[in-house]
Amino acid sequence: MTMQQTPLLLWRLLDRGAWITPNEEIVSATNSGSHRLTYAEAATRARQLASALKEHGIGIGDRVGSFMWNHHRHFEMYQAVPSMGAVLHTLNIRLGPKDLEYIINHGNARVIVVDDDLLPLLEPLAPRLPSVELYIVSSESGEWDTTITGAIGYEDFIRRGADDFSWPELDENAPLGLCYTSGTTGNPKGAMYTHRSTYLHTMAEAMTDTMGMSGTDTVFGIVPMFHAMCWGLPYTATMLGAKQVYPSRFMQPERLLDLMAAEAVTLACGVPTIWQGVRNAVEAEPDRWDLSNLERVLCGGSAPPASLLRWYWDVLGVEMIQAWGMTETNPLAVVSRRIAKRAHRQLSIDEQFANVRKTGLLEPGLEIEIVDDDFKPLPHDGTSFGELLIKGPWIASEYHADSQPDKFRDGWLLTGDVARIDPEQYLIITDRSKDLIKSGGEWISSVDIENHICALSGVLQAAVVAQPHPKWDERPVALVVKSAAGGLTEDDVMRHCAESFAKWQLPDEVLFVDQLALTSTGKLDKKVIRGDLSDQGYLLPDLR
Amino acid sequence: MTMQQTPLLLWRLLDRGAWITPNEEIVSATNSGSHRLTYAEAATRARQLASALKEHGIGIGDRVGSFMWNHHRHFEMYQAVPSMGAVLHTLNIRLGPKDLEYIINHGNARVIVVDDDLLPLLEPLAPRLPSVELYIVSSESGEWDTTITGAIGYEDFIRRGADDFSWPELDENAPLGLCYTSGTTGNPKGAMYTHRSTYLHTMAEAMTDTMGMSGTDTVFGIVPMFHAMCWGLPYTATMLGAKQVYPSRFMQPERLLDLMAAEAVTLACGVPTIWQGVRNAVEAEPDRWDLSNLERVLCGGSAPPASLLRWYWDVLGVEMIQAWGMTETNPLAVVSRRIAKRAHRQLSIDEQFANVRKTGLLEPGLEIEIVDDDFKPLPHDGTSFGELLIKGPWIASEYHADSQPDKFRDGWLLTGDVARIDPEQYLIITDRSKDLIKSGGEWISSVDIENHICALSGVLQAAVVAQPHPKWDERPVALVVKSAAGGLTEDDVMRHCAESFAKWQLPDEVLFVDQLALTSTGKLDKKVIRGDLSDQGYLLPDLR
Repeated sequence: MTMQQTPLLLWRLLDRGAWITPNEEIVSATNSGSHRLTYAEAATRARQLASALKEHGIGIGDRVGSFMWNHHRHFEMYQAVPSMGAVLHTLNIRLGPKDLEYIINHGNARVIVVDDDLLPLLEPLAPRLPSVELYIVSSESGEWDTTITGAIGYEDFIRRGADDFSWPELDENAPLGLCYTSGTTGNPKGAMYTHRSTYLHTMAEAMTDTMGMSGTDTVFGIVPMFHAMCWGLPYTATMLGAKQVYPSRFMQPERLLDLMAAEAVTLACGVPTIWQGVRNAVEAEPDRWDLSNLERVLCGGSAPPASLLRWYWDVLGVEMIQAWGMTETNPLAVVSRRIAKRAHRQLSIDEQFANVRKTGLLEPGLEIEIVDDDFKPLPHDGTSFGELLIKGPWIASEYHADSQPDKFRDGWLLTGDVARIDPEQYLIITDRSKDLIKSGGEWISSVDIENHICALSGVLQAAVVAQPHPKWDERPVALVVKSAAGGLTEDDVMRHCAESFAKWQLPDEVLFVDQLALTSTGKLDKKVIRGDLSDQGYLLPDLR
Repeated sequence: MTMQQTPLLLWRLLDRGAWITPNEEIVSATNSGSHRLTYAEAATRARQLASALKEHGIGIGDRVGSFMWNHHRHFEMYQAVPSMGAVLHTLNIRLGPKDLEYIINHGNARVIVVDDDLLPLLEPLAPRLPSVELYIVSSESGEWDTTITGAIGYEDFIRRGADDFSWPELDENAPLGLCYTSGTTGNPKGAMYTHRSTYLHTMAEAMTDTMGMSGTDTVFGIVPMFHAMCWGLPYTATMLGAKQVYPSRFMQPERLLDLMAAEAVTLACGVPTIWQGVRNAVEAEPDRWDLSNLERVLCGGSAPPASLLRWYWDVLGVEMIQAWGMTETNPLAVVSRRIAKRAHRQLSIDEQFANVRKTGLLEPGLEIEIVDDDFKPLPHDGTSFGELLIKGPWIASEYHADSQPDKFRDGWLLTGDVARIDPEQYLIITDRSKDLIKSGGEWISSVDIENHICALSGVLQAAVVAQPHPKWDERPVALVVKSAAGGLTEDDVMRHCAESFAKWQLPDEVLFVDQLALTSTGKLDKKVIRGDLSDQGYLLPDLR
């Protein structure tokens, strides 16, 4: 071999941060202000954590769960667990108990590191989590208590570890991260990222044309670390040696703005709900925060409204970069920039924003296609639409230890999104995934709720569909056809749902209807059902 | 495998250019003005070229040579040859006939594409190039003549090819490019780049913190395409869909400036000699050229003087980015930016330029070290210096089909450069490679000339050392100790050298001396010999 065969291991990129900027900071919001840690300190603590985990018995490929907010200890987990060859199994704190129990058991977590304020969500499940041998509790105050036996404090735990722990050589296809996504049906599905896939994703994310992230940036990671590896931001920022800021559990717009101003954030990343809230806060008190350092805002998770994109530019002079991806795409795949091609330099601002409103342009290294129902490619004419396919070296090829529900075919991942591609190769996602509802950046499976409702006595048929919501993007509404014998009430259905789903997953309303539109093959026609509600002037309860 | 195993093939990146910006241009200087080609046209022509080469019998791994200036046809070669699975064997048009013959035969070129004005350099060698079956002549005028039998015109050749030729799937470790470098001793050595190494190099080159290259740029590739894959610029620019400009053989500073102004170049890349010439031209006629679009200048090949870096900033408002690499490093490895870390935002301009003068910071993905004579790592304290080592996935691990003269050890490439590393991990190359002379961006092997001089009757000992030169950076001077019997003259030595070396490789002067400084182990002490000349106030002939 004429060129070196260096395995593409993530720690090769991450170690660069503490090497070139040992004194740069990782800042985390706390109850009383901000916690500050240097890259050098974080790197040392990550090695201690890895060493202590290894001492405990965690080996190559073993899963270590995190049930945490975004802060420096979660960041240390992000560094330590993949670098030592184990798998970071991020647990979404917003899941209902059923899904949470499922993903911990299915992912086979041996250790879970949990924030003390999140213990109440985990404690009731602990008896049903046989694979978990050890709970490590991260606490800001140092004062915590739990019903879980044998739990240990994070600081006590890492103190056991050696600060000169060496990262091992591994096969570059070794797994490093496990993230679950709500599938269209049934249980959550796990995407198992590898060193190679995340290494390449990290390089692509550092490109000028992605979000222009630089070691000179101060990056604010608002998107939860339990979402699709926090969009890869901790990795790219660490590789570049950028300052990093994390909000922990303090997600109120005013607090986010305080932090952005105080830490001179240049690049902030979150879902549209966050950016809508920040906008409202700024509009309420336009002179309160100095946002002169803010240059770019990355907005992903769902499509931001055009008016929001434009407001950040017109009022704050900030470029909001629309980004698209999925848990299965590691996740960043498509970004929309104000000036994405040389020819755009000549466009008017209005014309530039006509492009920004599109989902965006594909990152180098990936391929996309749109296909009709017969899986035939459709023209990229900006009008034809079909299911979006994607492939490339940081796209999942299967779900972890699970059935593969028609999501993988001929080397492609079938995204479930309906999209157009225009002659300039702009991706334009026209419909949300057919069966999923996106609320405040979180997926809700309509099919799961439907199945659950249908199990209730007195229900003949049920459809759960998304309705647009200015704050949460979408909220679920249930339409139910009663059986002839039924004396069923709306409350009956809601109570039944509350037994199995988290509060934010519950339908905002249950509507009883005489029938539901079906497709030619007898399936629920969600598009028609959604459309009927809109045509009838339906509004969600809190919008009336 | 949970993530897709897409092989990292270069065409996956390159195809993106014509896909997202089919109408963007590749502009080449010509005798009569500029030649313009769209990305879509270039992609079609590259497929035709590949198809015709395959039709001729070129298969996976076969070498296709280019003996050309920088222009659209050379660009088409850059796309077609690697994408079809063959190996682009770039031939340095500045080599002497001996080295040129050697690298063509050693690289086993089956086809050579040659510019018509360069035919006179190749024709005398043709009878001694048994592997070359076909010469393809690229001609601007379409009128050419050659003594080589069976040569065919480039346009006639590609017309044989199909414009829908499909790039093959290959192993990502398949070779794609072969570049020869002047080693410290003996024959030139070949670095054989692979798809994987070039793919990763291309991604790293597109990072914000490398040179901030974007699809919105107009990139001017002045560095010759026969040098270390033109620093990878054609590949990165094509992946991003940037406008590209190439000077062909019109390398006069005024012509370069005309092109930069006319094409609104934003990022221009060349060696210090070029940038010194451009500076001189601008100083002579400050109002002649509109360079308001120029944002960045990449300067590599050898270290630019601090005054030059500063002049571009102070006078033109242009950031000159110092870049370091070697043919063996694919080549980009280290860059020096004005603001490379967040902390630099607070520095004064003078302090920023104190950093820019250093060789720079290492790209993500690579590792460097400095070692003493016992191969022990030295502290990164900014004062300790030793030989620079480098490793990573786009660093050569061996020379193509050759002996490995102490250049590879424990996974490292030994660069031959003497360097310091400071506590901020800035690389500072303190001495040029011990035995090489860098003249106008080209290497001259002092050892080769010494050996040749020593072969002359009447010579006892010879040393060839570099002396600083404001235009060429360095020029060689020969110091010769005559044997007792010698009636040797300076002319004798020069005539003898001219038999084997190109004119620009010849020493500027031959000095007869009584003795030469030797190291403790009896080798020529080049450092002392160079220093002695400087101490004695020696000046090169054309500087006196």
